[in-house]
Amino acid sequence: MNNPHIFSLRVYMEDTDAGSIVYYANYLKFAERARTEALRAIGGNLPTLQDQDRFLVVRSCFLNCLASARLNDVLEIRTHFKKPGRARFEVSQVIVRENQLIATLEVVLACINSQGKPVRLDANFADKLWTHFGGI
Amino acid sequence: MNNPHIFSLRVYMEDTDAGSIVYYANYLKFAERARTEALRAIGGNLPTLQDQDRFLVVRSCFLNCLASARLNDVLEIRTHFKKPGRARFEVSQVIVRENQLIATLEVVLACINSQGKPVRLDANFADKLWTHFGGI
Amino acid sequence: MNNPHIFSLRVYMEDTDAGSIVYYANYLKFAERARTEALRAIGGNLPTLQDQDRFLVVRSCFLNCLASARLNDVLEIRTHFKKPGRARFEVSQVIVRENQLIATLEVVLACINSQGKPVRLDANFADKLWTHFGGI
Amino acid sequence: MNNPHIFSLRVYMEDTDAGSIVYYANYLKFAERARTEALRAIGGNLPTLQDQDRFLVVRSCFLNCLASARLNDVLEIRTHFKKPGRARFEVSQVIVRENQLIATLEVVLACINSQGKPVRLDANFADKLWTHFGGI
Repeated sequence: MNNPHIFSLRVYMEDTDAGSIVYYANYLKFAERARTEALRAIGGNLPTLQDQDRFLVVRSCFLNCLASARLNDVLEIRTHFKKPGRARFEVSQVIVRENQLIATLEVVLACINSQGKPVRLDANFADKLWTHFGGI
Repeated sequence: MNNPHIFSLRVYMEDTDAGSIVYYANYLKFAERARTEALRAIGGNLPTLQDQDRFLVVRSCFLNCLASARLNDVLEIRTHFKKPGRARFEVSQVIVRENQLIATLEVVLACINSQGKPVRLDANFADKLWTHFGGI
Repeated sequence: MNNPHIFSLRVYMEDTDAGSIVYYANYLKFAERARTEALRAIGGNLPTLQDQDRFLVVRSCFLNCLASARLNDVLEIRTHFKKPGRARFEVSQVIVRENQLIATLEVVLACINSQGKPVRLDANFADKLWTHFGGI
Repeated sequence: MNNPHIFSLRVYMEDTDAGSIVYYANYLKFAERARTEALRAIGGNLPTLQDQDRFLVVRSCFLNCLASARLNDVLEIRTHFKKPGRARFEVSQVIVRENQLIATLEVVLACINSQGKPVRLDANFADKLWTHFGGI
C-alpha cells in the first residue's frame, strides 16, 4: 500500500470482553472511525452527505484477526482506498499495534439515498479519495 | 413495587469487559430493552410513535450497581412505571439474577418531536402504562 | 443448509444508527449470540470452557449485507456448523427478516488457551455440533 | 470546578441511534474514556492496577441529559475528582459541545480485588488525583 490514511486510537474498557481481549465486532467500529477521518481529511463530512440525501453503507466486510489487542493498547489503522466505482468504493484497512499486525479488513461501501437506491458518488470526491489515500 | 413488567435476557460476550463482568453502560441498554418490551406489551410501538413524530428520550438516569453480572447469567428486569406527567414519565427498574439484586435504575423519559420540543403523551397510552405496570 | 440452529432476536434502539438502520458491526454481535445459543443447545457452556482454559476466538469473519434491518424488526439467525477441525471450526450464518435475506456471515473460530495457543476441541463436543447443526 | 481534566472526542456513527442522536448509554462510555485518560495523566494505568489485583468498578452513576449530541460533533469532557476515600472515589463530569452543556455525570467508583472485596487505593495515587484534577 502506498499512501494510506493513518488513524490512531486507544483501547478502552468498553472495547474489551471477558476474554480480556478486544471484542471482535469492535474492529469494525475502529475501522469505520478511521474511514470517517479519511473522508474528513479530504473534506468529506457525513452530515453534509446526509443533507444531500447520500448515505454510505457497508455492503460487505471481511475481517481477518491475526493477533489480539488488549486494554490500553494504542492501535494504528492504515486505510487505503481502491479506485472508486460510480456508486461504490472498496477500502483495505490494516490494524497494527507497534509493528505487530492485529487485523486486516476489506470493506465494500455503497452510496445510497434515503430510499435505499444507489446514488452516484460525487466525482470530485471519489477522485480525491483515490488521489490522497489510494494510488496503486 | 406491585405489578412490574418482567423481561429476561442472557449475558453474552458482547456485554462483558476485561474485568470479566458486565460493562456498566450495558445495564442501560438492558433497561431500555425492558422498557421497550413493556411499551410493546400495552400496544406502544416505537416506529409507530416515530411516524407520529414522537420520540422518547432519556432525560436522566440513575444507575446503582450492587453486584456484578457475568457471562452466561440470566438476568430479569422488573420495570415499574410511575404516574406519567403530560410529556414525561418516570420508571423504576430492578435487575436481578435469581434472587440477587444486581442493579437498580431510576429513569426519567420525555416525549419530544423531531424539533426536540416536548410533546404531550397520548393520554390513553400513558394511562395504560400506569394501569398495567404502575399502580402504586 | 440442512438442519441449522435457529435463533430469534428483536432490534432495539441500541442496535441502530443515525441512518435509521442496524449498525453494521452489530450483525457480528447478533451472529455471536446465535452461535452461543447453538453451543448451549448441545451442552456447550462458555464459562465451563473457560474453566477448562479454553476460549473460542474469531479468526475471520465475512459479512455480506443484502438489505437493511430496522428498529423493531424481528430477525432470525440460522446457524450451520461445518465439519470441525482439531482446533477450529467454521460456521455459516444467515440473518433473515420474515422471508427477506438481510445478511450472511462466514465465520472461522479457533479454540485457544489463555496463552493464546491452539487447543484441541473436545471430540465429543465437535461431533455433537456437526451432528446437530451441520451434516452436509 | 477548578482544575478539571479535559478530554475531547468525536461522535461517530457507532455512537448514534435511529433518533439521529447519541444513544444515551454511550455517554457512560465517553465518561469512562475521560476518567481513564485522567488516571493515565497522573501515571495510573489500568493494566498495571490489574497486575496488582486492583480493579476500579462503578458503584453508581447519575446521568443528566440536557441536550442531544449528534453525528460528527466534537465533545469535550471535563472531569473533576472529589477527595477520595480509602477504597472509593467520586467524580463529577460535564460533557459540552462548544459552549453548550450536553450532559453531566456523577460517578462513584470503588477499588476492589478479583474476589470483589474493597481494596484500599494507593494513597499516593489518590492524592495525585485530587491534587491534579480536584482541589475544591
